[in-house]
Amino acid sequence: MVSLNESRVDVLVLGAGPAGVMCGNALARAGVNVRIVDKRAVRVAAGQADGIQPRTIEVLQSYGLADCLHSKAALMVMAAFYNPGPKGIERIGRVPDVTAPTARYPYEATLHQGEIEAIFLDSMKKEGLQVERPIVPIALQISDDPEELADPRAYPVKVVLKHLAKESGDDTEIVRAKFVVGADGAHSWVRKTLGFSMDGEQTDFVWGVVDIVPSEVTDFPDIRNKSAIHSTNGSCMVIPREGDKIRLYIQLSDTDAVNPQTGRVDLGRYDPERLLKVANKIFRPYTIHAIPDQIDWWTIYQIGQRVASRFTAHERVFIAGDACHTHSPKAGQGMNASMNDTHNLAWKLTHVLRGWADISLLKTYEFERRKYAQDLIAFDKEFSALFSEKLREDGEGHGPTYEEFIGAFQNYGNFSSGVGVHYSPSAVTDPLYQAAAENLIIGQRLLPHVLVRAADAREVNIQDLAPSDSRFKLFVFPGVHADKVASFLERPEGFFNRRRDACSVITIMCGEKATVNHLAVPPVLRPHWTKVLLDDTDITGTRGGWIHERYGISRMAGAIVVVRPDGYVGTVAPLDKLTVLDDYFGSFMLST
Amino acid sequence: MVSLNESRVDVLVLGAGPAGVMCGNALARAGVNVRIVDKRAVRVAAGQADGIQPRTIEVLQSYGLADCLHSKAALMVMAAFYNPGPKGIERIGRVPDVTAPTARYPYEATLHQGEIEAIFLDSMKKEGLQVERPIVPIALQISDDPEELADPRAYPVKVVLKHLAKESGDDTEIVRAKFVVGADGAHSWVRKTLGFSMDGEQTDFVWGVVDIVPSEVTDFPDIRNKSAIHSTNGSCMVIPREGDKIRLYIQLSDTDAVNPQTGRVDLGRYDPERLLKVANKIFRPYTIHAIPDQIDWWTIYQIGQRVASRFTAHERVFIAGDACHTHSPKAGQGMNASMNDTHNLAWKLTHVLRGWADISLLKTYEFERRKYAQDLIAFDKEFSALFSEKLREDGEGHGPTYEEFIGAFQNYGNFSSGVGVHYSPSAVTDPLYQAAAENLIIGQRLLPHVLVRAADAREVNIQDLAPSDSRFKLFVFPGVHADKVASFLERPEGFFNRRRDACSVITIMCGEKATVNHLAVPPVLRPHWTKVLLDDTDITGTRGGWIHERYGISRMAGAIVVVRPDGYVGTVAPLDKLTVLDDYFGSFMLST
Repeated sequence: MVSLNESRVDVLVLGAGPAGVMCGNALARAGVNVRIVDKRAVRVAAGQADGIQPRTIEVLQSYGLADCLHSKAALMVMAAFYNPGPKGIERIGRVPDVTAPTARYPYEATLHQGEIEAIFLDSMKKEGLQVERPIVPIALQISDDPEELADPRAYPVKVVLKHLAKESGDDTEIVRAKFVVGADGAHSWVRKTLGFSMDGEQTDFVWGVVDIVPSEVTDFPDIRNKSAIHSTNGSCMVIPREGDKIRLYIQLSDTDAVNPQTGRVDLGRYDPERLLKVANKIFRPYTIHAIPDQIDWWTIYQIGQRVASRFTAHERVFIAGDACHTHSPKAGQGMNASMNDTHNLAWKLTHVLRGWADISLLKTYEFERRKYAQDLIAFDKEFSALFSEKLREDGEGHGPTYEEFIGAFQNYGNFSSGVGVHYSPSAVTDPLYQAAAENLIIGQRLLPHVLVRAADAREVNIQDLAPSDSRFKLFVFPGVHADKVASFLERPEGFFNRRRDACSVITIMCGEKATVNHLAVPPVLRPHWTKVLLDDTDITGTRGGWIHERYGISRMAGAIVVVRPDGYVGTVAPLDKLTVLDDYFGSFMLST
Repeated sequence: MVSLNESRVDVLVLGAGPAGVMCGNALARAGVNVRIVDKRAVRVAAGQADGIQPRTIEVLQSYGLADCLHSKAALMVMAAFYNPGPKGIERIGRVPDVTAPTARYPYEATLHQGEIEAIFLDSMKKEGLQVERPIVPIALQISDDPEELADPRAYPVKVVLKHLAKESGDDTEIVRAKFVVGADGAHSWVRKTLGFSMDGEQTDFVWGVVDIVPSEVTDFPDIRNKSAIHSTNGSCMVIPREGDKIRLYIQLSDTDAVNPQTGRVDLGRYDPERLLKVANKIFRPYTIHAIPDQIDWWTIYQIGQRVASRFTAHERVFIAGDACHTHSPKAGQGMNASMNDTHNLAWKLTHVLRGWADISLLKTYEFERRKYAQDLIAFDKEFSALFSEKLREDGEGHGPTYEEFIGAFQNYGNFSSGVGVHYSPSAVTDPLYQAAAENLIIGQRLLPHVLVRAADAREVNIQDLAPSDSRFKLFVFPGVHADKVASFLERPEGFFNRRRDACSVITIMCGEKATVNHLAVPPVLRPHWTKVLLDDTDITGTRGGWIHERYGISRMAGAIVVVRPDGYVGTVAPLDKLTVLDDYFGSFMLST
């Protein structure tokens, strides 16, 4: 007999932080049957993570959410660096904050975590999904029946949820799920329940963080830029924030901040006033003064750099976000890595649940995201050491020189901006024919570029033709072979006709907006008039053009670029090797 | 004894078409006590006016509404021209649709009138204002007491409103208003009641209009561009529209369309099928085919080109929009002229109602907008003749040659885009010191230009620093005289300190984003850190920079540019003649 408080769901998301809401929103938009629960009674009101990298802005844009971010966030365009001088700190340089030349958005955005979550919550709501609160999981069990585990239609995961706001006796329910996503934070209950370890180490660096609104007395000239300050009294970072707020990251003496009895950071030893006092020593000769009563968040913490031993159990329960990696907030990575975990996972779950892909596709989640998390820790170690150690001058000290520091800052641009993420070969990433589009790296995200629509000359970024809509995109650069490509796609036995619902076709013609005729393209290559683009500049002549050269695709030979539903280049097919597309899709897709 | 159904309001707007909703929204945003009523029970669902010019997009942007327009509208980037050839029409050119080099938005936007109105209705709603429907005015009376008319606090206008949806006996109310705006369309009841004539003439041109969704059979290659077609079978225009819709304007034989008995256009003589049949003759050898059941609007009409004899009675009742000017829809002017009428009026009403400006300021409404309407009619006559007459070929016929046609199309770019509007000298437009900013024409709208914020290097268009918030903007280009300007503004007896609430100060520095210190500007010139801008390029180096040269302002001598609340340049003050600012504001502003 089924108990009254037992129900089924395709995907249960545990936790509504950045990883959870990205997951919930992506699945809800895809029409997946999903629930999302969180232990907090209300969403975060202030503080916590706040930095959005250029690549994450691209991802938000792919869900139609970047405009909303831009309307609310502060943008960090420039980064300033200060060093000790004879009378206190002195600026030694102010340079572009984002040094990744391919970034579509050449800045970082900052906004408090609650507002970022709200962007997703609003979007989810339009799809009929709301976070259920306050709810915690209290038991989780995965079937050990191999047949059940292999059957995508089965519900092999049993979760017991406890509703914290309900009367005892009526406060638990059983949920049977096809898949569970544990996005339940650094102290993840799901991770502990699955028995995964966190591998890595604690560092010696202790930092204080405080969000303030500077008063008029504040005379530090880079108060609205990202600023990294090395002083004889320690290090500090300024992160400008939405409205008039700023955030300060302040290096603390671990002997002051750590309780010698417990060996752990002791919040009781600090308060915002004391943090500002430390900051003002660092900022000399400048003064940082906060408007009283507008300090809405502060904390102190020790940097831990760890990665979970596993990201999934049987590809039925997954962990994502802080549950599987923790690192310093110095390079602004945390929330970004978390959201990109579930951005990677959501489309794969969708494909399996729709019966489009084999369940083995889900193995690529741990494969891709755990490697990324490990790279991130390695990056973070170097990067946060850079910000934690005193600069070496005149041969004194052990830290980096200023030149090494700026060099490292700029060298890490590709990684810290998030645009350098590179997924290794797998079922969904096949670099065999990289040479057919040699500058468009298979495994990396689709390079942004401006095109114009052939029919109406409207400007469009190619990334906006690859929205996060669960579909693979076939970007056809037909060269002189449009008819050949059309015949290939029209073969009844080809993958395209067997899984038409999983693929969109977009054609990019050579030509000029003053003379092009989009109707000259074979019908299968123009499913809608908006899907024929032109390799030409926009009407002002200042944006776009030369995408063939940018991507390294021959205007004669052409190519088909396959972009995964998450915006990463899956493979490239030369037009004289079109059957590789059947091989690529055949390796993970199921036929109708 | 005051009757129960009698009430007072500062401004009563009659009509919720484009002119009415622009007025209602602008006044509601300014916090003015306003009501807006309309005779229609619901807003327009389809058809009617649909073209938004580049300048009107700038105006929408000044109210924060351009993003919403862009997300819904079609954009017309290119314009194509067809002429008769041996086998039917042939394209003789496809050129940029907008040829005004200063346009911030180098395209026109199209969207059906109801959706455009909805953008304003949504915005108004956020300010607590909703259109009351269905309501018509049935009586209007203006006091003849000169003292009452001169007192901005008086309610000299009495309007009787009839609620069409209410029971008789309970369906009328009396509204006593300080000001009334009649935005009640071409057949304006307000205009007739005031006894104003419409001066001008009917033309011989009869046009049919039909909104369709072209089917796949349609093979006309410019179906998504603005297209002007001259054929041996008549003329036609294609206007691409939102989604998959397009609009066709089809020239009709007046002998077919006009009822010889009445001399008026007879809708009964046409239907959409017959219009499409005429169109297909014009389009030969191409076919235009509409998806059945998706024709949501059509009409036929004769072009009238008329301007009302007066735009106001005693500066207490105003008419705006189609109520005071009618013209052909060929150049897409109608809705634009209408919205810009009340955009011009709303801030003036606001200033008078707040006690900031003398009531005589309202005289500038008719002065500025009636002259514009007359210019518009003159333009429309030439422009629509251009589109209505057969092109002259080989010396045959009376129409323009193709070269004359294209030349005229491009020459009219400044006017047809709306960016060329030029208000003559008046209390609020003083061109005396034009030489201090010789390329920024006083009386024209503020030229768009990209700046970067000095504090955080964020890119911003100068037009976005002059939003429609009822305030005058003082753009200070301090040259080497920042301290002098600061002292001038700080004089207790100066206009700025007597009307601080009516003015915003924005400072534009020379300098570079890598080194600038925004805190070096005197405090009165930086009321907020976002109000100090830099004449430098954005972070990509592709936008902005050189605004001093663009505007013709000396980097040494500087200047103050005064921008009116509607975005038009009111005056320019050289920094060695700063007291002209006292004269300018003193001519219409009241002291506290």
